[in-house]
Amino acid sequence: MASFAPTPLLKDELDIVIPTIRNLDFLEMWRPFLQPYHLIIVQDGDPTKVIKVPEGYDYELYNRNDINRILGPKASCISFKDSACRCFGYMVSKKKYIFTIDDDCFVAKDPSGKYINALEQHIKNILSPSTPLFFNTLYDPFRDGADFVRGYPFSLREGVPTAVSHGLWLNIPDYDAPTQLVKPLERNTRYVDAVLTIPKGTLFPMCGMNLTFDRDLIGPAMYFGLMGDGQPIGRYDDMWAGWCIKVICDHLGLGVKTGLPYIWHSKASNPFVNLRKEYKGIFWQEDIIPFFQAINLPKECTTVQQCYIELSKHVREKLGKVDDYFVKLADAMLTWIQAWDELNPSSKVAISSKLTNGASK
Amino acid sequence: MASFAPTPLLKDELDIVIPTIRNLDFLEMWRPFLQPYHLIIVQDGDPTKVIKVPEGYDYELYNRNDINRILGPKASCISFKDSACRCFGYMVSKKKYIFTIDDDCFVAKDPSGKYINALEQHIKNILSPSTPLFFNTLYDPFRDGADFVRGYPFSLREGVPTAVSHGLWLNIPDYDAPTQLVKPLERNTRYVDAVLTIPKGTLFPMCGMNLTFDRDLIGPAMYFGLMGDGQPIGRYDDMWAGWCIKVICDHLGLGVKTGLPYIWHSKASNPFVNLRKEYKGIFWQEDIIPFFQAINLPKECTTVQQCYIELSKHVREKLGKVDDYFVKLADAMLTWIQAWDELNPSSKVAISSKLTNGASK
Repeated sequence: MASFAPTPLLKDELDIVIPTIRNLDFLEMWRPFLQPYHLIIVQDGDPTKVIKVPEGYDYELYNRNDINRILGPKASCISFKDSACRCFGYMVSKKKYIFTIDDDCFVAKDPSGKYINALEQHIKNILSPSTPLFFNTLYDPFRDGADFVRGYPFSLREGVPTAVSHGLWLNIPDYDAPTQLVKPLERNTRYVDAVLTIPKGTLFPMCGMNLTFDRDLIGPAMYFGLMGDGQPIGRYDDMWAGWCIKVICDHLGLGVKTGLPYIWHSKASNPFVNLRKEYKGIFWQEDIIPFFQAINLPKECTTVQQCYIELSKHVREKLGKVDDYFVKLADAMLTWIQAWDELNPSSKVAISSKLTNGASK
Repeated sequence: MASFAPTPLLKDELDIVIPTIRNLDFLEMWRPFLQPYHLIIVQDGDPTKVIKVPEGYDYELYNRNDINRILGPKASCISFKDSACRCFGYMVSKKKYIFTIDDDCFVAKDPSGKYINALEQHIKNILSPSTPLFFNTLYDPFRDGADFVRGYPFSLREGVPTAVSHGLWLNIPDYDAPTQLVKPLERNTRYVDAVLTIPKGTLFPMCGMNLTFDRDLIGPAMYFGLMGDGQPIGRYDDMWAGWCIKVICDHLGLGVKTGLPYIWHSKASNPFVNLRKEYKGIFWQEDIIPFFQAINLPKECTTVQQCYIELSKHVREKLGKVDDYFVKLADAMLTWIQAWDELNPSSKVAISSKLTNGASK
């Protein structure tokens, strides 16, 4: 099923969002792959600190003062002193696609020793359909050299539009604090040459380190929540967004792919600091997952915004009982949608995937 | 989460079932890996033909006359002149595990050029838990060098017992006749170094070429249907079994893994012959898949046998409307269970996986 056309650059259709840049080598190393694109840098901490961007990059930079100025009181929904602030960049972008990456992620090598153009692989992933309704044992049937295997229903081979491409990490794996503490030396050395669709009805832990998505299809649900300064948890920003986008993609008949491309994750964050950020999340998650597994969005929700507003009501009602934090989060989810719609007045269009109804639970 | 103990051979707990052996090199090439095990060869065609088994192998061989003698009138549930007859071997085995493989499957090499001990990998897969309730982005968390990633709920990390390990094929991919006709030269050259659990609620196309399962956990559902001589279809034997075992595994809280190990599939079967065998299946499948996706087994079904009998009722009622073949198949499913229970009188024990209830739809 693979198309052999060269992968388009999507230069004018894709923004790169980076939460902050502490590491000066980062953009130098990525220059061959990222310089053609426009960068949106969202500074996560002290606005007076200066972020140096190497010559030749086209970028815009937002610090907390900018966020406050642009969103006014609605700036409350954007996290401070936490990389969750990156979602502000998703909101102010005017492009169709976003690639977001952390500044401790470098260019990885494939098993032949060649540097991996991660963004090119993300573009391949997101421009080819997903297959969430039936599992293909040879993985993504739209890759070169692959196809649907015997027994795959022909009516499902068209697939559904891909909304999200979730890339992985070599070297430092994305472990939680307890696992980091128990296995400080474990490194991910296994290059798995696969892309696959996460099936409908299945939740996954979405990591924001190396992620691409289609703003038009799923942008308004890509909210990274309330983390960091003044909040009881951290390191659940991308997870939260992942659970939200997955139930909405499942409802709207959109696909989420995971696997290639790899980046090289260079630095393990401090497990003690991480434990402090995570420990409430580790408890709460035991309620959050069954909550998301049980969500049933009504047929009437045909846009991402409608789905997200509906989801926020459930969060308030059900998770609000777990902790008051979730009442605050439900409010922030609504504020986020209001802010999104103000900055993106034309994005309220209903998604008319032909599978919208058929694919709904 | 990996255990670093050496993989046990399971010499006294595993039988190898082969539908027939036309290729004399087959067992020679596999000798280093398969000779320690007992073989059950089920001859698919003319009982007068002699199957040569190389010296040194311990085996039993059943032809059609043996099947008729052992099962009497119940032999009607075992396919003739079709490799689907292999399931008779599952029934007469007295071991806990079955590895089944086709005689056109040779030993594959990994990317380093080393011959792959497929059975050793199957044993690793089946002895470690599955994780059908939440997707782990670094694939099987029980492999060496892998674990559960950040955001994976701790309560789900124990996993569930693995009932099936589905291996893949390098070289000739397992395509249906239309795809074979369209892409006669496509070869699978991609070695994907992954094992993963197929999530709960997701169906997949199970191929019988390179498959291991736990008879105690799922054996009575591993029925390969009515194919070949006197039947309107072929090449849906393993698919049918795959859909049946998956809905039953989902209901009983058991896991199905796919991915490694690879075998080298040497020979593409004739696409014209395949088309004749498949074409009704290609139509029927469009009803079969929604049928299996909608199956909801009642809580009262706590053994594989109970689940399978319940499933046969649904097949008769729902798929019987698609074609009379499915009425005959539903009968054969019941006959199969009766024959299984006669040959395996102690296998009716209820599965008491702790997730039995929680994991049910």
